[in-house]
Amino acid sequence: MTVTSPKGFRAAGVAAGLKSTGALDLALVVNDGPDATAAGVFTANRVKAAPVLWSQQVVKGRAVKVVVLNSGGANACTGPGGFQDTHSTAEYVASRLGGMGAGQVAVCSTGLIGERLPMPKLLAGVDGAAKALAKAGGFAAAEAIMTTDTRPKVVEITGDGWTVGGMAKGAGMLAPSLATMLCVLTTDAVAGADALDEALREACRLTFDRLDSDGCMSTNDTVLLLASGASGVEPTQEELTAAVTQACHGLAQQLLADAEGHTKQIAIEVVNAASEEDAVVVGHEIARNNLVKTALFGKDPNWGRILAAVGCTDAVFEADELDVAINDVWVCRAGAAAEDRGKVDLSGVNVHITVDLNAGDDSATVWTNDLSHAYVHENSAYSS
Amino acid sequence: MTVTSPKGFRAAGVAAGLKSTGALDLALVVNDGPDATAAGVFTANRVKAAPVLWSQQVVKGRAVKVVVLNSGGANACTGPGGFQDTHSTAEYVASRLGGMGAGQVAVCSTGLIGERLPMPKLLAGVDGAAKALAKAGGFAAAEAIMTTDTRPKVVEITGDGWTVGGMAKGAGMLAPSLATMLCVLTTDAVAGADALDEALREACRLTFDRLDSDGCMSTNDTVLLLASGASGVEPTQEELTAAVTQACHGLAQQLLADAEGHTKQIAIEVVNAASEEDAVVVGHEIARNNLVKTALFGKDPNWGRILAAVGCTDAVFEADELDVAINDVWVCRAGAAAEDRGKVDLSGVNVHITVDLNAGDDSATVWTNDLSHAYVHENSAYSS
Repeated sequence: MTVTSPKGFRAAGVAAGLKSTGALDLALVVNDGPDATAAGVFTANRVKAAPVLWSQQVVKGRAVKVVVLNSGGANACTGPGGFQDTHSTAEYVASRLGGMGAGQVAVCSTGLIGERLPMPKLLAGVDGAAKALAKAGGFAAAEAIMTTDTRPKVVEITGDGWTVGGMAKGAGMLAPSLATMLCVLTTDAVAGADALDEALREACRLTFDRLDSDGCMSTNDTVLLLASGASGVEPTQEELTAAVTQACHGLAQQLLADAEGHTKQIAIEVVNAASEEDAVVVGHEIARNNLVKTALFGKDPNWGRILAAVGCTDAVFEADELDVAINDVWVCRAGAAAEDRGKVDLSGVNVHITVDLNAGDDSATVWTNDLSHAYVHENSAYSS
Repeated sequence: MTVTSPKGFRAAGVAAGLKSTGALDLALVVNDGPDATAAGVFTANRVKAAPVLWSQQVVKGRAVKVVVLNSGGANACTGPGGFQDTHSTAEYVASRLGGMGAGQVAVCSTGLIGERLPMPKLLAGVDGAAKALAKAGGFAAAEAIMTTDTRPKVVEITGDGWTVGGMAKGAGMLAPSLATMLCVLTTDAVAGADALDEALREACRLTFDRLDSDGCMSTNDTVLLLASGASGVEPTQEELTAAVTQACHGLAQQLLADAEGHTKQIAIEVVNAASEEDAVVVGHEIARNNLVKTALFGKDPNWGRILAAVGCTDAVFEADELDVAINDVWVCRAGAAAEDRGKVDLSGVNVHITVDLNAGDDSATVWTNDLSHAYVHENSAYSS
């Protein structure tokens, strides 16, 4: 259940020495066709890493034959030299594998911002990965893109005669849009670039864009979807979108479950909003509120902090019509205390917050984590 | 140097038993005139506490003779009953002190959201405070409004024959607008309500609105400015605004220095912005970025996280024209690494970040704190 689950894909993950630990840090994902259609969604951050700027152009060409990914360095804020490094990497991969131009090679990087990549090591790693390319290489590739992740994230969704596979990394800087990370999805479905683009945008909108672990948007976010057409099956747009959304949802939940230093996985469900956008805005505002997040770390059903967060938005609601439930206990009705907060059980990992805006019929769920000592430790003890 | 420094004011702070610790928790500030002009600025949070809703109406009457303040309970999200509690408090104060209507009594509350105040205790506290009213009562009043503050915040600015005094509380939920807190300013200057309003709005805009300790906006923010006219001196608008701004700046810096669990006091100076608003937006985005805040807690000059935060704004800038200095070391020039980050000394409490947008002539400074283990502890270990 990886990027190599669908027919027509090979992958590899090797240790190129970019990480001082000697762990896997360079991955290749190769689309052997017959098709090479592709779509991509990239960070909305205006400070974009060199590989993002490069891959955006590659995806515009609507054909991606290879994705080369590295951890151990983000190649962000590295100036013209950093962009040249990305360009050189794509050219090297294209010539090493043959049968393609550099313009069909997408590049993804993750790691510390502001430092140049050690190119000799990286290119030697490409050599090693090219030799290691295999149908069984999906797990190694998923492992090679990990940074502070404690485990690889992989997924497989089975259609009627076709498959979607995927891998992702991300444990901090998880926020829209996107939920900060790298993600490569593959499918052996027959699908044009427009169909892939539509499926991927809708899937991201409903999954990664609603994952907001720590409110920080990365410079390197990239989600790629590659289709080989090797199954010979052409699903409908609805089938394709549903399968890609399911794959993204699966990966997003794995990201949530491996977020840096969390003790809680929190679903914030906003219901009866005047619009879906209102529901998402309110969900994000709560997800980003440090006082809500620390309260949940402390197992404190502090619904007042939730209301204070809702009040910072311009969503349609009246303050004296807000209802809030924490793990199904309606601690707040009509903007004031209701059921005994002592009834709320926050001993488990999963927390479900329901906010009823009583302003319409739309709803949305945003996922987040708590703010713990371990989060502070992981993000202060070393550069990342 | 308190609210009783200007002529025409008395104050008191007593223990009414609202705090379980037995600490001072109820304050009165009385304007003995001859004037009773006033202005107020309140939280922009749409979930407003009952005392905020009440005091907004009082200030519209342009005359405030007394401010009654309590810690030990925010009286926010308490429904119609909570509003009635505030109303009763104002009526009780007015009848107890005489010579005024309830409509001239402003009310401020701070503490846990969502619980009703113990009114018998509170009103008994008003009795005690009324008896204790004194010219020397300013310090006790400042102490009585503390919550997680470790020390009272007071200020005095001397004009030419007139004075501005003030007190504030606030240690968490510090964010615009306002920097969350209660603040009462007094002056013996002769000044109409319009002049006070203009001075107070400009002062808040430049000081409290640019203090962003943890990005969380409270339900109870209130800044009041009361003028007694007892000096007989009428300063110009410029003189009044300057003195009030200086007083607010002094209090804002005390709030910054007492913010929950901080180890750093961070000034984020954004220069060469296309507009002052752009500079403020960029400053706040950096101030609220948990990855920047944890890095500074870890004494890590991680300028890449600063650039990633800048990139989340819609301010005018080009990513490859951004310069960043940390404590005067220009670690980033033209969006890429410049001076050795190892030169940055982050051993002290004070950190100065300069972000040059290279997009115009405007500038602004936003103040914040780091995100530490102590912050997580203070906000998770008990309800507040």
